[in-house]
Amino acid sequence: MAKTIQNQILGVLGGGQLGRMLIQSAINYNQDIHILDPDPNAPCRDIAQHFQVGSLKDFDTVYSFGKSCDVITVEIESVNADALQKLADEGKKVFPQPQILKLIQDKREQKKFYQDNGIPTAEFVLTESKSDVIAKKDFLPAVNKLGKEGYDGRGVQILRSEADLEKAFDAPGLLEKLIDFDKEIAVTVARNENGDLVAYPAVECAFHPTANLVEFLFAPAQISVEIEAKAQEIAKEVILKLDMVGILAVELFVTKSGEVLVNEIAPRPHNSGHHTIEANFTSQFEQHLRAVMNWPLGNPDLRCPAAMINLLGEDGFSGPVLIEGKEEALIERGVYIHLYGKKLTKPFRKMGHVTILDENVETLKVRANRIKELIKIKSTP
Amino acid sequence: MAKTIQNQILGVLGGGQLGRMLIQSAINYNQDIHILDPDPNAPCRDIAQHFQVGSLKDFDTVYSFGKSCDVITVEIESVNADALQKLADEGKKVFPQPQILKLIQDKREQKKFYQDNGIPTAEFVLTESKSDVIAKKDFLPAVNKLGKEGYDGRGVQILRSEADLEKAFDAPGLLEKLIDFDKEIAVTVARNENGDLVAYPAVECAFHPTANLVEFLFAPAQISVEIEAKAQEIAKEVILKLDMVGILAVELFVTKSGEVLVNEIAPRPHNSGHHTIEANFTSQFEQHLRAVMNWPLGNPDLRCPAAMINLLGEDGFSGPVLIEGKEEALIERGVYIHLYGKKLTKPFRKMGHVTILDENVETLKVRANRIKELIKIKSTP
Repeated sequence: MAKTIQNQILGVLGGGQLGRMLIQSAINYNQDIHILDPDPNAPCRDIAQHFQVGSLKDFDTVYSFGKSCDVITVEIESVNADALQKLADEGKKVFPQPQILKLIQDKREQKKFYQDNGIPTAEFVLTESKSDVIAKKDFLPAVNKLGKEGYDGRGVQILRSEADLEKAFDAPGLLEKLIDFDKEIAVTVARNENGDLVAYPAVECAFHPTANLVEFLFAPAQISVEIEAKAQEIAKEVILKLDMVGILAVELFVTKSGEVLVNEIAPRPHNSGHHTIEANFTSQFEQHLRAVMNWPLGNPDLRCPAAMINLLGEDGFSGPVLIEGKEEALIERGVYIHLYGKKLTKPFRKMGHVTILDENVETLKVRANRIKELIKIKSTP
Repeated sequence: MAKTIQNQILGVLGGGQLGRMLIQSAINYNQDIHILDPDPNAPCRDIAQHFQVGSLKDFDTVYSFGKSCDVITVEIESVNADALQKLADEGKKVFPQPQILKLIQDKREQKKFYQDNGIPTAEFVLTESKSDVIAKKDFLPAVNKLGKEGYDGRGVQILRSEADLEKAFDAPGLLEKLIDFDKEIAVTVARNENGDLVAYPAVECAFHPTANLVEFLFAPAQISVEIEAKAQEIAKEVILKLDMVGILAVELFVTKSGEVLVNEIAPRPHNSGHHTIEANFTSQFEQHLRAVMNWPLGNPDLRCPAAMINLLGEDGFSGPVLIEGKEEALIERGVYIHLYGKKLTKPFRKMGHVTILDENVETLKVRANRIKELIKIKSTP
């Protein structure tokens, strides 16, 4: 263990905010992290022990980067999984495992995986083209998803009626029954190579009406003990059936009839777990580190109810960052601002987040709304 | 404010663990930090935006480093204060102010400052040489302190009786009445340029019997409301009388008769505040950053009772670090290990610390003792 912490190099594909917060956490353990990212100004640039500029999708680049590391992980799913597979075949530790990344990269495969493993998820039908979607119009209202290359809201759209069929994706994808959900929640689970498994308490997500990004998050989710238990059980089932090592965010729908259905999964630290830095005994970043390095997992309990707000670039502003309203927020007890070090803002770009702690769940909601209105990411004139 | 956070460079004299934890905290604000340290392998090396190897005591080195920064602070007191004074005279922001560093560098001046400002402290007499100490032997039992160059227990010794006079310091120093104290406590205060002032709840220190370093720390201190109030009032009085900007750790004796006396002060993040990272709403590192950058100060309240253990190099071991017993500690809820990234250990070297959170103060003490016995810093064979 001592030697593990001291000497092994952890390589991370992707040097964005997730990698940045992972490094921040790894500093406590003196764990060296090497980063590969195509952007020379990526958020991890200045704080990684080694920062390499290169494509995450190019086989040779990923392979040679991985060769110089002992353990390899990702902070984004769209990476060259074949290169990772070769590294794993040659004995490198790659977590999440390459076959899981391949599964995640294809929403069609993901849905089939749920189906094959008895994991509850919205009913779906695969579609090969726009005309195929039109042929299956009896399935509407539905969510039309592209099989590959969807990310952060791209490649996902709602087809409510025949009038929407015009915009159907003309590539392999799927139609998923539109769920009349009561809540969207998320459960993060983590598992190490030893097989230790922990689950975080469920959180509740509120999405931005147009950007399809998490706008508010509240922990704990306001759900019954039964729904909480069901959600945790499903999340554990997913990571076990995947036989995955690392941290896995499982987004779920709670339907009006009390069903719990898996919506999407992410095999890495995730937006729905940012509050864990201050709100939980072990942050999702430290937990991911522990999981991929095969250290003992940390306690996932909530220390205090929390809200999380994404700081998205304001619509209508592009260029060097100008932050408004921070002074007032900084004075408040239990308000934590995280800026990701991105030089340029653009509409809806994730520029940072704020976590708010408050023992009183009602006050928390009021404060979260107020702080959301207070802090604005604009650009310099 | 926005521009302040984005564009100003904070220079720090010293790149040890205090600078390292300051950087870890500054990442949240995207605040660039430049470090000057004589050791090319100092703990800040890999995570500072800019790391310069150079002497902290050399006028030209400190001056030219400071010229390239907007705000300059320290993580160690023994730096060239004349160079900092010149930088301040030329309009750079230097916090703590150079004259305060000069005061701290001379324990004689410090004691006179307390006396002149009516700040309660142990009775003392200045001594110029060994023979002068001998001449003042009626003052025994006393603590004999060197005026300058004392640090972490060096330059401080107890002279209980005439038999001890043989080891008296033969240089300008002082004799301080040996205080028959009930407890040693510490209060951290912070003040920004706007004059905002906050005080942290008092913590209780337990020192290592031979190394004269804090071995255990408990927060909150087990003291009466009256003693707490008195200690906070004194600590605020010190920072106000110093007219200081930054964070100030004030170590105090609580005597058996209920007096509160200032023992030592440190105008920077301090060992007695490490627990604040996890235990308080605002860590001492973030608070120091806010204070020197003139941002609003953060709430200092305790979120949860905490214990802090220094991880000192075991006596008898020198060389590359080998850590024992970490596995077991990592599993526990509310145990936070911080390693400082030092490559080599030696007896009593500060290699890291552990913070333990527990709502139950009695359990906390038991757990702190157990974890202290569990984790050992040794060297590879």
